[in-house]
This record gives sequence, structure tokens and C-alpha cells, in this order.
Amino acid sequence: MSLSFESLVAGALTAVVGQDEINALLINSLVEKARTRPHPWSTRYPYICWTGLTDRTYDARLLPAYPYPEVDAPKTRRPPIQDVVQLFEEPTGQQRECPKSTCLFPAFAQYLTDGFIRTRVSNPAPFHTFDDDRRRTTSNHDIDLSPLYGRTEAQTNVLRVKDPGPGQKGRLKSQLIKKEEFPLYLFDQNGKMDPQFADASGAAVLDWPLGLKEGAPGKATIFAVGGDRANANPQVAMINTLFLREHNRLAGLLEKRFGAWDDERIFQTARNVVIVMFIKIVVEEYINHINTSLFKFIANPQVAWHAKWNRPNWMTAEFGLLYRWHSLIPENFVLDGKTVNGVSLVLDNSLLINTGLANTFVDISANNAAELGLQNSPSFLWQIEANSVQQARTNNISTFNAYREAMSMDRVASFEELVGESDDEPENDRRRQLARRLEELYGDIDNLEFYVGLFAEPRVKNGPLPELLMAMVAMDAFSQALTNPLLSEHVYGDPGNRELAFTDLGLQEIEATTCLKDILARNSSGLGDRFVGMTRQDWHRE
Amino acid sequence: MSLSFESLVAGALTAVVGQDEINALLINSLVEKARTRPHPWSTRYPYICWTGLTDRTYDARLLPAYPYPEVDAPKTRRPPIQDVVQLFEEPTGQQRECPKSTCLFPAFAQYLTDGFIRTRVSNPAPFHTFDDDRRRTTSNHDIDLSPLYGRTEAQTNVLRVKDPGPGQKGRLKSQLIKKEEFPLYLFDQNGKMDPQFADASGAAVLDWPLGLKEGAPGKATIFAVGGDRANANPQVAMINTLFLREHNRLAGLLEKRFGAWDDERIFQTARNVVIVMFIKIVVEEYINHINTSLFKFIANPQVAWHAKWNRPNWMTAEFGLLYRWHSLIPENFVLDGKTVNGVSLVLDNSLLINTGLANTFVDISANNAAELGLQNSPSFLWQIEANSVQQARTNNISTFNAYREAMSMDRVASFEELVGESDDEPENDRRRQLARRLEELYGDIDNLEFYVGLFAEPRVKNGPLPELLMAMVAMDAFSQALTNPLLSEHVYGDPGNRELAFTDLGLQEIEATTCLKDILARNSSGLGDRFVGMTRQDWHRE
Repeated sequence: MSLSFESLVAGALTAVVGQDEINALLINSLVEKARTRPHPWSTRYPYICWTGLTDRTYDARLLPAYPYPEVDAPKTRRPPIQDVVQLFEEPTGQQRECPKSTCLFPAFAQYLTDGFIRTRVSNPAPFHTFDDDRRRTTSNHDIDLSPLYGRTEAQTNVLRVKDPGPGQKGRLKSQLIKKEEFPLYLFDQNGKMDPQFADASGAAVLDWPLGLKEGAPGKATIFAVGGDRANANPQVAMINTLFLREHNRLAGLLEKRFGAWDDERIFQTARNVVIVMFIKIVVEEYINHINTSLFKFIANPQVAWHAKWNRPNWMTAEFGLLYRWHSLIPENFVLDGKTVNGVSLVLDNSLLINTGLANTFVDISANNAAELGLQNSPSFLWQIEANSVQQARTNNISTFNAYREAMSMDRVASFEELVGESDDEPENDRRRQLARRLEELYGDIDNLEFYVGLFAEPRVKNGPLPELLMAMVAMDAFSQALTNPLLSEHVYGDPGNRELAFTDLGLQEIEATTCLKDILARNSSGLGDRFVGMTRQDWHRE
Repeated sequence: MSLSFESLVAGALTAVVGQDEINALLINSLVEKARTRPHPWSTRYPYICWTGLTDRTYDARLLPAYPYPEVDAPKTRRPPIQDVVQLFEEPTGQQRECPKSTCLFPAFAQYLTDGFIRTRVSNPAPFHTFDDDRRRTTSNHDIDLSPLYGRTEAQTNVLRVKDPGPGQKGRLKSQLIKKEEFPLYLFDQNGKMDPQFADASGAAVLDWPLGLKEGAPGKATIFAVGGDRANANPQVAMINTLFLREHNRLAGLLEKRFGAWDDERIFQTARNVVIVMFIKIVVEEYINHINTSLFKFIANPQVAWHAKWNRPNWMTAEFGLLYRWHSLIPENFVLDGKTVNGVSLVLDNSLLINTGLANTFVDISANNAAELGLQNSPSFLWQIEANSVQQARTNNISTFNAYREAMSMDRVASFEELVGESDDEPENDRRRQLARRLEELYGDIDNLEFYVGLFAEPRVKNGPLPELLMAMVAMDAFSQALTNPLLSEHVYGDPGNRELAFTDLGLQEIEATTCLKDILARNSSGLGDRFVGMTRQDWHRE
């Protein structure tokens, strides 16, 4: 979306051919920067085979394993992990700020991607046990709001109100705390899992909240939700709570309107509406925040109906790495009038519960994000960076320059070119030192690892992301969101089926929604005209 | 493929634009006769919803459930099953013969479709137990040769040679009987399952041979294979045995050529080659046998790469019904010089084992198929017809005329028009009586059930199938075969990846194969120049 030229052209063309046509033109050009799906490779085998092409419990890959076992790869270099991790650490206690983004941006990015970028990590008993395997995934490979609804039907079932009476049909389980609606708690006051979330044998149906330790101070505030990361911090739990309320609100409207419908149909129809509403926000609020051009993308699924990139989604190993935007997260937040360290928010929903949903959205929107890049991650996420570097190596991810080339970009010629220049002299010093350190570690720019290179590039003007990262995010976002089954030519594109799937009521609600604030306003009280958004109010084009 | 006009045009055009272009033109026109995938409906819910759009353990559907619960459907009529089944019964002991097809045609059709048309029926212990559910499927929805390789990876694993030494890498388990290679037997001489096909707990990994009863005379001859229908009769077992031999032959060639490869890579590469070889036969031998035109289709996957119908395969409930070609099967066969009743062949491989593979292929090719249509099914399949009629009703399949319309055909106006006229007076009498009987049962042509109407239409000239059936077979065959993951733009369409996936050796073997006889010749001895084929040697255009 580095569209300075394209945005000029777009401006001129809009008058002639209309916004839908420009929208289609730009989206196609962004998606077709690299080879589109189906991917011939997965993380399972270093060669092409039936199992690799069909076993979706492994990640797909944009580029084959590198070094490919039978090919000489003299330039491969993997410096010690601890040296690489140091590149991510913000050393001074003074993180660089992102001029464009509030903390609602990383909160939404995390909630969105936790739904489908799902490296397989272990689940302790009585929760269903997986072995850790960083080549594998528990993803459904679709934007299905699994953090809200669960990733399996069994999970969905324990999250739904059972045998609902009138006024409860189609609803997700919830509780009122200080007159506000939240998900139920997962654990009772003794720290034992509520048995309604277990199967007949007593085994948990939901996934274990990732990283939660026994005796953790926030354990009593953990919600029973679809996603194992939807309690990761109150920013994420807040977005999940918002969509839970919206689901239940819509179910209520549908129950009133369609008196003869049963629980199942109300649930399914409300979910249809919520998923499409969510995708609309992904494109029209989130992607447009990332977008550096003047053109505003619209969530028109027609673009995808006959596109050659309309092939089944299959999350790639590369996509699972490039979305690790730890450096956007500030070391400290100001929340509810107090400065709190980010680490104190982890796996603890008490701030959200005490402050309330509207206030938390306002607070998060009032905190500025840090700038995405090396040497800017908060201290409590450094260990996670090490896992990421290791995950890339486990999957034999190719080099940074190989990905630039795969995305139709020029290879970067030197470490100096990689880090770029800044008008600001201290910043320029930092970059020059960084380039030297990278050179010490990697020797040759063509040795540079993908994961490090992604974040070594400078943030592009007018956007929150560096260049290669932005291009890959745009490609994946459009090609995965607009190909959603609910948006297909024969559902959303067929007027009769569209009305059957969503109802006229649901379609009006979708129409009336372009941003999170729209949903928040109808699901909370006391929001007033306070600011809620991903783009800082003081942002101006660079 | 009722292409009398199109074939004329094709003839004229071929000179100008070439066979590939005509091939693409015709295939697109055949596939686009109806709404293409993705299907908005499945057999799970009568409305459109996320679960319906994603749960592939249910069949998709071309048309929604009928009667749709909220729509008046005054014309629905379901005569008693026993009356409907009588329509299928051949009453005189003199089946009508198909002028075009040998019994190799239904044998291949059965083997092909048993791989992906897989209604979920029960499996007794110690075999993994399913409940019968005729709305559900155990299909992988792809042409993956699951009758040979199994439909799950666990099944594949027990069918492969374990810890192979040199000369055994990548092979499927097999045994020599009278110097010929066959699969292993599933049961020992006491009728107990060979424990190598069970998991650690003693539960069978393979599926129970469908319909096999304890104490059945053929039980000792049942092979351990991937598919629960691949022992259904020696015709089907013969085709499975052919591909087992071809797999092992290719694995041997690959092992010799690529000495450094491990078991896994040899297995996977041989399977890649065999699957594509199989698809080539589907198009170039099988579909061209069904084809009524002079034009010969070629298995050029390029047609599908950018086609709007290139969407994930998902078997439909309609497809699972229309492939029940029981009336092609003669009541009696002449095999190994003796007349045998068809029922004696069921679940008994002794004839295949005793006669040998080449001789059985020759024998089956020397038996003519019966003509597909009502009043022509052999007595031992009448009960199966009842199951089919019931399955259609369980799934609320719409009417025959609704499907004509969905396939861009005129609705049939009367029962007389439905059954058509014949030059042969006794045949004409039969048809007129049939039309009267249908009218008694259904009253109005618009009430006629899909499954009955399919087989009430007369066989089209120059082909083995009636009109609507042929159109639906063509649509599904091309749109499912050419979209195979191995044939994708980025595997088969990319010269480098094609060679990695298949090797030059494998590609040469694919190139050298256009019919079953090609494969048989290299995997048997004593075939000589005897006839093996789906099209009768005495066939001439009508």
C-alpha cells in the first residue's frame, strides 16, 4: 500500500470510473504482488506432495524451505538467538512513538490475528492436550471470529446458552457485572474450571488461556471465551466483549422479529451478521488505518468473486511470523487515570471489569502506540521475540531479500539502505549503529533473516508499518477477508440468498457499521462523544 | 455433453484455433450449465449459515432443501417406496443392453466414485464406529484415490510397508499369489482381522468392507485396501489391484533413480504420479466414453487455473444420488468361460485371484453393460434402489424438473415427453406404459422425484447416459477433476515445481498413459493384444 503514485492516479480516475472500480484495481494489484494461492508448499515436507497439499494442520508457505535440503546454501547464517533478540530490545527506556496509531490499533490487530494465526502450542490437562509444534497450526484458516465463538463446534456449544427460554434464544452465555454484560468466568472462586465448560468426562472443551499459570493474580477474572488468547490483556478482552454484546443484541432483535425461529437459527443468523460486520471493520477501519494513500478501501466482496486469487485460505508460516507486532506495545499505559506497566495487564481482566467497556475503549484510544521496528519492543515481550526467531528457523524460512523479491520488490543492497535515512540526527545515528550491528551479525545483506529484516526497515510515511511488512499484510488481508464463505458470489452476491443468510434487519446493521465505535455506541452507556479510534487525533499526513 | 451442434462447430473450429482452445471452450460451457461452487447450501441446515458453509462432513447441495420449510410446496408428492422401487426392477429377465459400453465402464465408474461419494454408513466394531447418517459424508471431496491409499493418514500408514529395506521403499504392502501381485488379505484363516491393520488398542484402522457379513463365503479373499467398497466385487478389486501394482512399480523406478531419497519421499512422489495418471484416465478414457460428440476431451488442467468454477470441491447430495448406476450391471456375467450370477461376485475376490489380473480385465471388457434406465436393474440391486429413494427424501432433494431448470434445460412438459419415443415398437410400448405408471404415481410431471426422473429419461444417442444425468456428470467431473491440488497452476502449471513434484521419470509415465490398458500392459503378463476397454468393439455411431 505504498501508493503515493497510485493514490494520485486513483484520485484522477475516481471521477471517471468510480470508487468500486478503483477499489478493485488497487486490491488486485496489492494481492497479485506475489504468487497467489494455492500454495505448493507447506511446513510439513520440503517437497511437493499430496499430504503437503492437503494437511491443513501445517502452515502453508509462500516460499519453499530454505535452505532446500538438496540445494547448496552457502549464505545461510543464523547468529546466536540471544544476539538476535538484542536487536529487538528497546535499550533506553524511551520507546519511539508511532505518530499515527493509538493502542486500539495493536489491540485490534491482536484480536483479529489470534483468530487464525494459531501456532500449535501445548494445552495442560484437563484441557485438551496438544504437543507443542511450531510447524503446525490449530487454525481454521478463515476469519470466523473463533476468539468469540470457539474454533470447534464443541467449543461453540459450551459457549452458547443451553436450552434457552424466550428472550434467551441464540445467545452466548454472559453475566452482568455492575450492570455491564461480560462473558462468564472460566474458573470458580477456588480456581477450578466451571464444569459447564467441560465434556462428560470432565475434560475441558475450551482451550487453556495461553500462558496462564496456576496462582496468577488475574486468574479469577479470566473469561470463558472461544479463544485461548482472548484473555491475553484487557485490550483484547475488551474487543471480544464488544462482539459478544453485539452478538447477543442482534440475537435479541432477530428473536423479536422472527418469532417462529428456533434457538439454532437465531444463533446462526446472528453469527452470520457479526462475522460480516467484523470483516467490514477489518477493511474499512483497520486496513484503512494501515493504508498510506488517500484512497479509502471499501469492503466490496465482488472484487474476489472471479479473482484468480480466490482460492481457499491457508495461513502461511510467513504470515504467522510477520504479524508479531510486539514493538507497537508501550512499556506503560495510562489507564483509568493511572500509569500501569504493560506486564501487569497480562492475563488480568480486572481493569476492564472495573473501568467498564466504554471507558476502557476510550482509555486505550488515548494511549499512543509505540513505533514498529527493531530496538523498540517493551521489556516484557523480549522473550517472545526469541520464540519468534526460533520459530522462523524451525520452519526454514528464507531470507529477507528472498521475500522482497517474491513480493515484486527490489532486493535491498546494503544494511544502510535497509535501515534508511532520517531527518532526525539522533535517529539517524541509531539507524547507522543498527546497520553496523546487523552487518556484524549477518555479514552480507543477503544473509539477513526474514523476521529481523521485516522490522529493520523503517516505518513508511503515513502508515504504521515498514515496507515489506505492509505489502505482505495487505496481500493477505484482502485475499483472506474478501474470500470469506459468507461473502461469496452465491451468498452475499445473490440478493435472495443474501437476505436469507442475514435478513433485512441484519443487512441494515451491517450497513450501519464502519468502525468499532459504531458497535460500541450501541452496546454501552456513557460513551458520549469521546474519542475511540485507531488513528491518533493529532495525526497529520507526513 | 449432448453436443451434436457443438461438435460440428468444434470440428470446424479445431482447424482454426486448436484442440486446447476448443477443449477449454467446451469444458467451460459444460461446467457453467448450473451455478458453480461455492455452494451456499448443505444437507445440515435448511438455511444459510457459517456451520453449513464450513462443515464438510455434510454434503453440499446444488439446490436448497425442498420443500423449503417456510415455503408452501403443494406439489410435493412421495409415493410409497415399494411402488417407486418397482419402477427400477427389470421385470422380464431380459435386460436391455447398452450398445456402447462394456462392463469395464461401470467397474471404473464404481471405483472412481467410491473414492469421494461416501455416504456415512455404519462400521461394526472393532472397526471405527460411525452412526448411519445419510445426510453426512466421510469424503475428502477430492480425487485422491482413497480406495487405494485410504481416506485418512492413519489408514495410509497401515497400508504402507513399514520400515522398508532397500528395494521396498515407498511401497504399499502386497503379496504374491500364483506369481501375481495383490494386496494383503484383511482377515486370517480364522476370520480374524490381521493385527497389522489395527492401532495399539486393537481397533481397526481400516474401514469395514461395506456389506460384508460374518461367515460370508468370500471373506477369506477380502483384501486390505484403502476403501470400504474396493472389495465390492472383482471388477472393482481388479482396478484397485492395477493401481497398487502401478504404485509399487513407480516406487521401484524412483528408488533406483533417486538413491538418496527416503521411504517417505518415494512414497509421496509415486502417489503424486499415480493420482495424476488416474485423473488423466478419468478424462481421456472414461469421460470420452460418456461423451457423445466426435470431439475428444484432453486432461489439460490449464482450463481450470483461472476459471470462476475453480473453487474447493465439495460433493453434493445430488451427485451422491445420480451416480447410482445399478441398471448398467447385468444380471449375469460370463467370466473365465462360465456364466455366473452377479450376486455371486459380491464381496468375493476369488475369481480375480484365480483368473489373474489380465484375464479378468479381458473378461470384464468382453461382457456388455446393460442399458442405464428404469425397469432395467438386476434383481440383486433392487433393495439398494430403495435406499437411494429414501436417501433422496431424507435430504429433501428437489424435483426432477427443478434440476432440469437448474442445469439450463427446458422443463419436461409431460411423462410422455420424459420417456421419449423409440423406433422400436415393443420398446415404445414399454415406454408408454412406464409413462402411464409414472403418471399414476406422481400425477403431475412437476411432482416427479429427481432420482426417478434421472433414470426415466432415455439414454441419449451415442452415449451410455440419459440427458440430465449426463449433463450433471460432465459438470461435476470436469470441475472436480481438473481442480485437483496436484494440477494447480503452481504445481502442474509451474515447470520447476512440476518436475519437483513428479520428477521427469514420473512425467514421462503420465505422458505415456491414456487408458487403463496402458497401465495393465506394464503390470501383467500374457495380455497380448486382447481387447480391454470401456467402449464395445462392435459399437458404431447411432
